[in-house]
Formats: sequence, structure tokens, C-alpha cells
Amino acid sequence: MVIDSLIEKIIEKQNPTCVGLDTAPEYLPEHIRCHWAVRCHLADDIFEFNERIIESIYDIVPAVKVQVAYYEALGVKGMECFEKTCAYAKKHGLFVIADCKRSDIGATAEQYAKAYFGAEEGRFGRYIDLLTVNGYLGSDGIAPFVNSAKENDKGLFVLVKTSNPSSGELQNLKLSDGRTVYECMGDTVEKWGEGACGKYGYSRVGAVVGATYPEEAKILRKRMPHSFFLIPGYGAQGANAEMLKHCFQKGGMGGIVNSSRGILCAYQKSDKWQYYDNRAALCARDAALKMKEDLLSVLGEIHA
Amino acid sequence: MVIDSLIEKIIEKQNPTCVGLDTAPEYLPEHIRCHWAVRCHLADDIFEFNERIIESIYDIVPAVKVQVAYYEALGVKGMECFEKTCAYAKKHGLFVIADCKRSDIGATAEQYAKAYFGAEEGRFGRYIDLLTVNGYLGSDGIAPFVNSAKENDKGLFVLVKTSNPSSGELQNLKLSDGRTVYECMGDTVEKWGEGACGKYGYSRVGAVVGATYPEEAKILRKRMPHSFFLIPGYGAQGANAEMLKHCFQKGGMGGIVNSSRGILCAYQKSDKWQYYDNRAALCARDAALKMKEDLLSVLGEIHA
Repeated sequence: MVIDSLIEKIIEKQNPTCVGLDTAPEYLPEHIRCHWAVRCHLADDIFEFNERIIESIYDIVPAVKVQVAYYEALGVKGMECFEKTCAYAKKHGLFVIADCKRSDIGATAEQYAKAYFGAEEGRFGRYIDLLTVNGYLGSDGIAPFVNSAKENDKGLFVLVKTSNPSSGELQNLKLSDGRTVYECMGDTVEKWGEGACGKYGYSRVGAVVGATYPEEAKILRKRMPHSFFLIPGYGAQGANAEMLKHCFQKGGMGGIVNSSRGILCAYQKSDKWQYYDNRAALCARDAALKMKEDLLSVLGEIHA
Repeated sequence: MVIDSLIEKIIEKQNPTCVGLDTAPEYLPEHIRCHWAVRCHLADDIFEFNERIIESIYDIVPAVKVQVAYYEALGVKGMECFEKTCAYAKKHGLFVIADCKRSDIGATAEQYAKAYFGAEEGRFGRYIDLLTVNGYLGSDGIAPFVNSAKENDKGLFVLVKTSNPSSGELQNLKLSDGRTVYECMGDTVEKWGEGACGKYGYSRVGAVVGATYPEEAKILRKRMPHSFFLIPGYGAQGANAEMLKHCFQKGGMGGIVNSSRGILCAYQKSDKWQYYDNRAALCARDAALKMKEDLLSVLGEIHA
């Protein structure tokens, strides 16, 4: 079961983090950007950069999170790069989280589930383990993802409390029953995950909970004991290890923390390896190791 | 301004509808499906079907709505077909609504805005006029779409009250201030549209309001006088013309109604043109004309 395997990989590597491949063109270092002159497409450069990052971190992190928006922005060629990136990460034994935040009515959600969970030739799902989705449409928009996740041994993360500054505008509104919208969404996610738990007590239906909101995270962690959290917001978005410890349960279990810019752009803030062609990747590894140490210093040893 | 032009096209054609190109493989008629043997990809057949539908309706409807999930399900080839379909519709003078329901935090929403509104070589945005988005993340997730829409003369439809059976689970919950979640979302959308109104009084920031919920539509229509509505749910999903009249204002203004299966699959329920190779397209035109008559019988002549 995918969440069990992810947990085992996190324990094995003692690293509850994933590297976010939100690869914006402006993140590419000169030595890759200069290929533009002889290459046919920017997407090829993005892929080369992703390859180098994956090669430099695959032995120390359990997963990557690929943010599809950066690839969609480059059109069809970008989507080809998205697929190649997912495939390359998978080939290196990494869990692949597709950060797509998809949502739609039942019949259409079924198509998205095929796209990102389907194993058939041509589908992105061949290289993807976990997908982020948006629950604004209610349970008939989520059921196709849950059903397909069970059939294909995949998992999903539903947006509950997002990491962005204005997430509270809707998510923190009080309902007439006393709960906030995010608490209500959290309760619903916990319910969607019923009957889909693995041996460590976490279900296939997880939640996105931003590290930037420790108070909300504390509340959600209590309300959602069976939900595995995907935790954005560390690093460039402003959250530190102390803030996100509330997202975890005993033994540092129950979550995986993402960092994107903090890893991909580490080379821009470093003086190391100045004369190495591959310094962006070396700095990324360095930053990923620092992030791991930082989290472990707060969470302690990760164990089941 | 895009909404003004759309309104003028609706008046010119006396037709406040759009055809939904949610082209599932099982919608394809035999004479297109039999190409599978000699073609390299199902996406080519989907495109051929879309071409025929567009050719058969472009003179009588103002717009198409292309549901990207059906194309994403076919991977990179599917996204190529999505782009070609949008381009072909645009070439025929149709407004193109990309039904993508995208949402993310600010920096990522910027990438989506580039993808679907950007005019640069390679971007889907070259062929798209309007985009559906999801507002669960709050205003910093929507601002990039609004800004880009202003720059590139595009428009967006934010999910407010969706047409699916379980949409009320979250959207109809009561807030402590007495509003429902969908009313709150509606008020927010109206606010996001401030300063972006065209000469007919409608802003670039519209709303998705399902025809399947007439009571909610009535309430939203009053609260959102400046928001243009994209109205799904007619036909296969169960709403009729009488139910959706509440989505409109004086003169039949303020909305565009989508039908997908009801048009694309009309040939499956018809005996007409049995020996014509192009009967699916002929039946689609027939169904689109019937839908127009049905709506006009309730709305009367459309005028500014």
C-alpha cells in the first residue's frame, strides 16, 4: 500500500521531506540556460536541470513533488517535460507526488483520475504515486480519485489548510456549527479515508496542511489521526522546523515536508563549488541534507 | 473587452449557449472509431470528431467549452489534441472557454495564468479566451489570474455553486455570519471583479453557477449583478430551461449555458441521417438548435 511504502522509505532514509520540482525558467543556472542557443525548447533545459537535481538527491530523500503548473505554462512541450521528469524520478526509486490540485464533478474527476492514476500506455499515471486534489465540489468529485487510488494503489492529498497568506479568507471562516471551514474539510477528508488505512494507521486519503499555520496544524493533527499530511511552506515560504512539528504525531510520523525554491535555488545563495559545472545540483544536495538535519533536530528519530 | 465581445456575439447569434467539448472516447461514432486500426493515437480520432462538431456548430453558437480533463487523460498526445481543438475553434471565430478549474498559491497561479492566458509561442493561452478557476485558496491565488486577464484581455469564471449532486456538502454550509459558503464565495467573486467591468456592466471575473440549483442561482443572481455566469448542468445533468432562467438578468443577459453530452451524443438518440457519414455532427447541430430554441422560449429575445 502506497502510504505504507512511503512511510517505510521515510524511516529508512530518516528523512520526512520531499523536493519540489517547481522548476521555473529563472531558476536555471547559466550553464544550463546557455543551451538555449542550440536547443529547440526551454522545456529541454528544464528537464536537464531536473535530471541533475534528481541524480543529486535520490539517495537521501524519499520523494519529489512535481508542480504541474510550471510545466503547463510551457504548453505541450512542457507536459512532455512533466512526464519525463516524473518518469526519471520514478526510475530513481523516488515516490512521485503530482501537485495538480485537480477538482471537478464526478464524470470529469474520473478522467483526471485516469490521467494521474491510470497505468495505461500514454497516461501520466504510469509515473505518479500521489496526487493533490481540491475538495470544494464535495464527495462526488472526490470519490473517483479515492476509487481509482484503491484500484491502482495510489494516494491523494486533499487541500485542507493551504500555506498561502490569504488561505484564511475562506478556510478560516466560522461555520454556524462552530467549526471552521478548514476543520470541516479536515473532518470530511478523514471520513473519505475510512476503510483505506494501511498497517501504520494512515489512509490513502491525506491532506495538504501548510507549515505556515502552526495553530491550525495542531488542531488538524488532532482531528485527523489517520490522515497523512503533505506539508508545504517550509523555507522560502517562511515556515521553520519548530513551526511544523505540530503536523507530526509520535515518532515523527504522519507527514512529509516539501521544499522547492529552498533546494532548487540553493546555489544562488551559496559560495561553494564555484568552479564546478554541476554546482546547482551539489548545492541542492547540500540544502536537502541541511533541511533533513533541521527537521530531525525537532522531530527526533523517525520510527513507527 | 472579452466579456463585451462575448455578449455581442450572443446577441448577434441570439444564442446564450456553448457546446462542451468533453469528448470521451466512448462518444465517438463507429465511422471515426474504426480509424483506430490505421491511426497512431486515439487523440487523433478525438480531434477529428471535435473538428466535425466545430464545423457543424460554429455559425450558430458563440462559444465552446473545452474540458481539459478529457485531454489530460490521454497524456501528452491528449494535451496536443486539447491545443489543436482550441485553435480550431478559435479559427472558426468561436470564443474558447478552457474548463480547467485551476487553483494554487500565488507564485504557482501565475504559472497557470501564463499557461492559459499567455500569448507567447507554445502556450495554450494563444487559443483561449476564458478559464474556469477554483477559489478555495483565497485572493492571492486568484489575483494572478485577474491581473493576467486584464493584461491579455481574457476572462475567468470562479466556481461558486457547482452543478453536481454533492456540491452542497461544503458550498451550502451556513457560516456564523448567516451566509452560506457559496454566498460568501459569490460576494468575493463580485469583489474580485471590481474595476474590471465592460460597457454592458459585466466584469472579467465571472462565476460558475449550476443550472441544477435554481434557488441558489436566484440568490446569486441578485448578489452578483456584475458577474457573468457560466452555467453547466443543462440537459444530461438534469436541468431544463425553466430551471436556469434565474441565472439571467433583464434581456436574457448575464450568462452562457453549457451542454456537452446532450450535443456530442445527440446522434445516439436520433434516427435522422442514418446513411450519412457525418451524422454525429448533423445531429449535434440539430441538438444545438433545439437547445437555443428551448432557452429562447423562456428568456425571450436577448438584448442589451
